[in-house]
Amino acid sequence: MSSCLFCKIINGEIPAKIIYRDDDLIVIEDINPVAPVHFLLIPCKHIENSLDIAEEDAALMGRILRVAAKIAKEKNIAEDGFRIVTNTNEAAGQSVFHIHFHLLGGRDLQWPPG
Amino acid sequence: MSSCLFCKIINGEIPAKIIYRDDDLIVIEDINPVAPVHFLLIPCKHIENSLDIAEEDAALMGRILRVAAKIAKEKNIAEDGFRIVTNTNEAAGQSVFHIHFHLLGGRDLQWPPG
Repeated sequence: MSSCLFCKIINGEIPAKIIYRDDDLIVIEDINPVAPVHFLLIPCKHIENSLDIAEEDAALMGRILRVAAKIAKEKNIAEDGFRIVTNTNEAAGQSVFHIHFHLLGGRDLQWPPG
Repeated sequence: MSSCLFCKIINGEIPAKIIYRDDDLIVIEDINPVAPVHFLLIPCKHIENSLDIAEEDAALMGRILRVAAKIAKEKNIAEDGFRIVTNTNEAAGQSVFHIHFHLLGGRDLQWPPG
């Protein structure tokens, strides 16, 4: 996926503030944060969005949620609270078509969620 | 977890508009919808929130996202777009401490997500 922004970040072709990485995923700072803590958790595997999660990807998706919770603890937003969001397609505002999960915290998050 | 609202719904002790169920999860209508389509996906296993997802639960969490996408297709909100949200603790507005994922669609969803 040579034209994918997140694949380029994962491959090191484009810089980003990477706060965590392992063989399966990276976590970067959102370049337009909307909360004091706003990270993106991105699997290295190019999956377009939630509609394309294969059965074999299920454990990876769950692992991303576990890493999100771990990072929330490390950033001291876990006890107060945080939100995890993934957008699919245009009406939800998906702007990069490589699945990613927003981790938001550090302030009270309103309802509805958009 | 005899006092848990969602455990009671799963056990049939409290009624809800259940739109899908299998051995691992149920999907119900949110009683206070904030979008034309607003469902809750809830694992039958009592997990308090994302902070309590064990390694053994990862595949189940991923499966919930797959079911969310499947239901989005069935409800004809997939092509336009939809958002999946999970709240952890008070600042995010978690009101029932049994992990659940909001599936929202049927309208343009704003940013920030709360």
